[in-house]
Amino acid sequence: MLRWLTAGESHGPALVAIVEGLPAGVSVTSDDIAAALLRRRAGYGRGARMKFEKDEVSIVGGIRHGRTLGGPVAIEVGNTEWPKWEKVMAPDPVPAEELEGVARNAPLTRPRPGHADLVGMQKYGYDEARPVLERASARETAARVALGEVARQFLRQALGVEIVSHVVAMGSVSVPDDAPAPGPDDLARVDADPVRCFDPETSARMVAEVDDTRKTGDTLGGVVEVLAYGLPPGLGSHVHWDRRLDARVAGALMGIQAIKGVEFGDGFRTAARRGSAAHDEIEPGADGVRRRSNRAGGVEGGMSTGDPLRVRAAMKPIATVPRALDTIDVTTGEPAQAHHQRSDVTAVPAAGVVAESMLALVLAEAALEKFGGDSVAETARNLRGYLDSLTVR
Amino acid sequence: MLRWLTAGESHGPALVAIVEGLPAGVSVTSDDIAAALLRRRAGYGRGARMKFEKDEVSIVGGIRHGRTLGGPVAIEVGNTEWPKWEKVMAPDPVPAEELEGVARNAPLTRPRPGHADLVGMQKYGYDEARPVLERASARETAARVALGEVARQFLRQALGVEIVSHVVAMGSVSVPDDAPAPGPDDLARVDADPVRCFDPETSARMVAEVDDTRKTGDTLGGVVEVLAYGLPPGLGSHVHWDRRLDARVAGALMGIQAIKGVEFGDGFRTAARRGSAAHDEIEPGADGVRRRSNRAGGVEGGMSTGDPLRVRAAMKPIATVPRALDTIDVTTGEPAQAHHQRSDVTAVPAAGVVAESMLALVLAEAALEKFGGDSVAETARNLRGYLDSLTVR
Amino acid sequence: MLRWLTAGESHGPALVAIVEGLPAGVSVTSDDIAAALLRRRAGYGRGARMKFEKDEVSIVGGIRHGRTLGGPVAIEVGNTEWPKWEKVMAPDPVPAEELEGVARNAPLTRPRPGHADLVGMQKYGYDEARPVLERASARETAARVALGEVARQFLRQALGVEIVSHVVAMGSVSVPDDAPAPGPDDLARVDADPVRCFDPETSARMVAEVDDTRKTGDTLGGVVEVLAYGLPPGLGSHVHWDRRLDARVAGALMGIQAIKGVEFGDGFRTAARRGSAAHDEIEPGADGVRRRSNRAGGVEGGMSTGDPLRVRAAMKPIATVPRALDTIDVTTGEPAQAHHQRSDVTAVPAAGVVAESMLALVLAEAALEKFGGDSVAETARNLRGYLDSLTVR
Amino acid sequence: MLRWLTAGESHGPALVAIVEGLPAGVSVTSDDIAAALLRRRAGYGRGARMKFEKDEVSIVGGIRHGRTLGGPVAIEVGNTEWPKWEKVMAPDPVPAEELEGVARNAPLTRPRPGHADLVGMQKYGYDEARPVLERASARETAARVALGEVARQFLRQALGVEIVSHVVAMGSVSVPDDAPAPGPDDLARVDADPVRCFDPETSARMVAEVDDTRKTGDTLGGVVEVLAYGLPPGLGSHVHWDRRLDARVAGALMGIQAIKGVEFGDGFRTAARRGSAAHDEIEPGADGVRRRSNRAGGVEGGMSTGDPLRVRAAMKPIATVPRALDTIDVTTGEPAQAHHQRSDVTAVPAAGVVAESMLALVLAEAALEKFGGDSVAETARNLRGYLDSLTVR
Repeated sequence: MLRWLTAGESHGPALVAIVEGLPAGVSVTSDDIAAALLRRRAGYGRGARMKFEKDEVSIVGGIRHGRTLGGPVAIEVGNTEWPKWEKVMAPDPVPAEELEGVARNAPLTRPRPGHADLVGMQKYGYDEARPVLERASARETAARVALGEVARQFLRQALGVEIVSHVVAMGSVSVPDDAPAPGPDDLARVDADPVRCFDPETSARMVAEVDDTRKTGDTLGGVVEVLAYGLPPGLGSHVHWDRRLDARVAGALMGIQAIKGVEFGDGFRTAARRGSAAHDEIEPGADGVRRRSNRAGGVEGGMSTGDPLRVRAAMKPIATVPRALDTIDVTTGEPAQAHHQRSDVTAVPAAGVVAESMLALVLAEAALEKFGGDSVAETARNLRGYLDSLTVR
Repeated sequence: MLRWLTAGESHGPALVAIVEGLPAGVSVTSDDIAAALLRRRAGYGRGARMKFEKDEVSIVGGIRHGRTLGGPVAIEVGNTEWPKWEKVMAPDPVPAEELEGVARNAPLTRPRPGHADLVGMQKYGYDEARPVLERASARETAARVALGEVARQFLRQALGVEIVSHVVAMGSVSVPDDAPAPGPDDLARVDADPVRCFDPETSARMVAEVDDTRKTGDTLGGVVEVLAYGLPPGLGSHVHWDRRLDARVAGALMGIQAIKGVEFGDGFRTAARRGSAAHDEIEPGADGVRRRSNRAGGVEGGMSTGDPLRVRAAMKPIATVPRALDTIDVTTGEPAQAHHQRSDVTAVPAAGVVAESMLALVLAEAALEKFGGDSVAETARNLRGYLDSLTVR
Repeated sequence: MLRWLTAGESHGPALVAIVEGLPAGVSVTSDDIAAALLRRRAGYGRGARMKFEKDEVSIVGGIRHGRTLGGPVAIEVGNTEWPKWEKVMAPDPVPAEELEGVARNAPLTRPRPGHADLVGMQKYGYDEARPVLERASARETAARVALGEVARQFLRQALGVEIVSHVVAMGSVSVPDDAPAPGPDDLARVDADPVRCFDPETSARMVAEVDDTRKTGDTLGGVVEVLAYGLPPGLGSHVHWDRRLDARVAGALMGIQAIKGVEFGDGFRTAARRGSAAHDEIEPGADGVRRRSNRAGGVEGGMSTGDPLRVRAAMKPIATVPRALDTIDVTTGEPAQAHHQRSDVTAVPAAGVVAESMLALVLAEAALEKFGGDSVAETARNLRGYLDSLTVR
Repeated sequence: MLRWLTAGESHGPALVAIVEGLPAGVSVTSDDIAAALLRRRAGYGRGARMKFEKDEVSIVGGIRHGRTLGGPVAIEVGNTEWPKWEKVMAPDPVPAEELEGVARNAPLTRPRPGHADLVGMQKYGYDEARPVLERASARETAARVALGEVARQFLRQALGVEIVSHVVAMGSVSVPDDAPAPGPDDLARVDADPVRCFDPETSARMVAEVDDTRKTGDTLGGVVEVLAYGLPPGLGSHVHWDRRLDARVAGALMGIQAIKGVEFGDGFRTAARRGSAAHDEIEPGADGVRRRSNRAGGVEGGMSTGDPLRVRAAMKPIATVPRALDTIDVTTGEPAQAHHQRSDVTAVPAAGVVAESMLALVLAEAALEKFGGDSVAETARNLRGYLDSLTVR
């Protein structure tokens, strides 16, 4: 059982995250985590905030001298803007007079369509959106990326797994069906692309799409694909719905802010095919059994097949649209324009990084379920014993 | 916390399912459950097995005189074909001589592409696929439908929620974008359609597609849409990824056999839109706040908005393709043709019924988290108190 | 993750239980389970019901030809008295006229002190106790014993663990402090004793205590001790409170009906000692490190040490006391005598069997967390790899 | 579902804890939490460390202007001694030369009996105890107390529940059976006592016991009792073992470092009584039904009865005994004396504070299961609706 919790508000002092259940002996440092966070902030189409804010990483527990200890790992991601917010978002009570007239403290009474604002106010009984949006903000994904880096290192060191994502659609611009996907060693090349697209020609068109969208005061969504290389066969299980690897990955990706769809392998396109052209036929190969194709996305019967896991997530356009959307003011019930503060055109490149992190956490959990282990060495030894025992390979 | 487990093999004596955590006082009978199971078996394109098998329902625990007691509810779905299988699938050891030469007991050594067969054998250390496919079979969904019926009755009686599904694509044939979706009272009308499509004209084309596919010895997948009407705002939450209603629904639907994609509202299409045309603007309405559209599928910030929840699931074509797929024989490693026994062309209509059940279970859990309650009356009272207290409605 | 649920009412058609998460390849048969259930029914001091009822065991799923398949295991324990109850406890509605005047259907309006009756009625909104006591009854423990037998076989076959219990106190009669505890092979000898006491002299006094108590129309509680032999060091963990093996065992034993106390090793007596005489000093031994004593009960820092796990559970006297206790009639609010139907003097011997089952389930879960494994062979291989790698033994 | 995780090492930079699932609107401040932590540090018999260390509390997330926001609450407890440890316990790698000769970094190769040291090294594959004891240390309980304070405020504000603990035994000195227990308003009085004993005469004897023990270079254990006042009937449930309130509380208390036994109400003493003198008879009272006694400790059938919940936990003596215990040196396998650094004689008074915290967390979870609620107002409203609807009171 791998458990993780994140906490913290967008403009609070820090985000903090704990993951419990990882073995001892995973090599990981603050620099690894900072580098992961930096990847999350990159991407053409991000606004000013991404540039002037920095993520200050502190490992608070669970790691000593660059190796996990076996206990819960806690990571804090500081908010460099905190001095501007320390009264408005103070954990402890602040005298009313100190808050009076502070612009940042003004009630947000015009809930933004496409955000948690309105329903969050209803659910929790608030008369303004600040207490909702502070937690609903995608800034929270920094905490997931921090934990995801630890999970990724575990997967790499214990199982030899590599996780890569790339952007396959930005607004109406899509990578061609026959464009090659990045391999296990291509992450740096993807990251070097302004929109994290692996196809240079499409990347240029995506950049143009972002530019055009910015000009019109609008925002963009898109689709990211995440791949995991090097998985052994048999993570997840067919025996119960919530053991299925695809079910768990789907939940984890749909649990990312703004994600509205998830598909494995060819997904919705597979649904339109006939059976004779929809599955991955099996044949003898040089090193054992192989599948001729990977339409399934590396999962059959809810289990990793050993082929690359391939999953896509559809992200809606950023809901804080510069040419503001219609809403109401809850204090009057009258029509109003929604608040709009942020100037990002799109967060799709970042969504790929977050999706990698969520996938890493789910795969780490599935690997520990199958192989157990309280140290990287033990998990790796159990994996080897399993692979050596396979009669059908 | 609502927990449910199913057990049983496709050709075993029975499936059995337990759901723990439902309140007392839900009215539900064996007939209700049998009717739900019958819906799962219907649909144009099903083969012989669906007709000659019947589901024998027994409520084993948790319900007395037609009302839940508050404890775990257990339901058994008997296998009318059991006499043919009682040696081959006997729980207890059977003398070797009694099994000798029994055709049904022959090892299944040619794993079927698109099924759990091959990877299941690897994971669990089997040299044939019977022990895997017996559990991986979609027959297991009967157990989920049985439990889903209890959850559905709870939702109806405590919250006034109705769940409806319909088929929106069958192979390459899709319902037009502007075709109306079925409303809360349209379930019987959908069920009366041979392919559970709500659009009569499209239904006829789908039936033709099934006929054509059968002739060519092939199979079909498709897409189902599930709708939940009458949800209050605020089920699920934005505060943590695994509290999000969409994350939980996505996991539950992807956890159905053969589902490869899930999307909320306009899903992947939304990803291709610009922000100004992708969200649901808010305006004052006659009875309070309303949204002008429902592109989001009734979920914002991981919470039900009060608008109809709308989610789609993409099902791959049945993997047991009559014109058999290539595989290997694991005893020799040589190329072979996959086993193919079943003659269904498609199970998409049934998938809608299963998806309704999974949705019902997830919504019941989310409702109990928000409203608590150990009896239908208590949950309903708490819901009323909440709705009455909403200042923004 | 090992999950298990039980369902069913005391006078319903059957109890049913599912355990999910056990590996494939555990050898277990209906006879093994029936034998375990028979052990639960034995013990001096049980009344008539234990004799005329029989447990009819059916394995419904998860086991084929005497071996677990890797999926959920479902076991049904039939109620041989069902024909007498089939109207009163019918799952489906029964016409009022068929229930009229049926004694067994009369409302139980005088809640019994020491039972769930009164508070269960309050919690679930009932005006009589039948719907509560049917589930609260200790008959439910038969379902746990059925599952516990599967867990026990797993522990035996994959880890070489043996679990034994014995009665150490019956009412005011206790086994002397220096009496030897039964070893891993002594279960049959304990079971052969009328009160499942391992000390013959004390056993005779316990039998006399039961006889005396019966004569006075009273009931008895007592204390059972459960031992697990052959555990490897390192099940459970110190890293989080709910990973601790002792915390999990304590919850599982306190979760047995009528258990009011749990202690590990010398437990409450240890609390009265000084530190120099309270712990288990460590010394070099012939086969590696050893502890000079086992006051801790085989758990340090929330982990199994490799020494025998030893835990005690205190059971209150049966609350259905023949000379009836004072209560009220809820229909009038007036003083009344509590219902009393059962004539057992004590269930302490049976409690040991139930406690063994709960311990087996918890240990199986802890073993799977540490060692993983989808088959008995895989778990055993991983255990061997771990033991071979121990540098401190 | 209420979830909480703690992280951090005894000599690391800080402990951090997150609790997820509490409603919005709980009033709680840093000062409240600091006061709770101060209570944990008090108690006669603590050594120097308790005095020179201070707990620096920071609320990192989930609380704004003194009220919970509905999202995860994160609290950090800084380690004022960190500067002394920042190299030895550095999360990131430290050059070998900087650690050379640093006494605090010397490998701890003589595992202490009664601690996690030896088995922790085996489980996680360490050759010294530092990586184990840093997490196993009871300092971790500060994180639980911080979270427990938030839970306690929720219980107080939403349900009117008060939790109190007191020491009932210190070594061989016990409070007389007929001594009154502290009431809901007596916490300050208990805290004012040097050993947190409510009986002044016994307190004096306990202080003498501590003094005597210190003189002999030894340590003491004892027993604490925790009481919860004001619970409604019906928290927890009889319907499944792990819904039982007593099972969950027992697991939570046994999950505290050094706890070896837990009992509800009269616990082990009840097991020695006959049934006619062991239960709590029911009678009409001025305000409705009442029980004549509270031998059960406020829990029947796994549910709170409405009477005070009363549970005891037995703590073993501190295992770091000044006159050191025998052990081995793992580098040589030869006999050695265990490390002993700490000079506390007893931590029993503090254990009561920790036990209050664990109880608060379990009760908060059980209350939210029954009453739901996303704000204190909603939970309180649902509770009122329930109490008003009780027909049997």
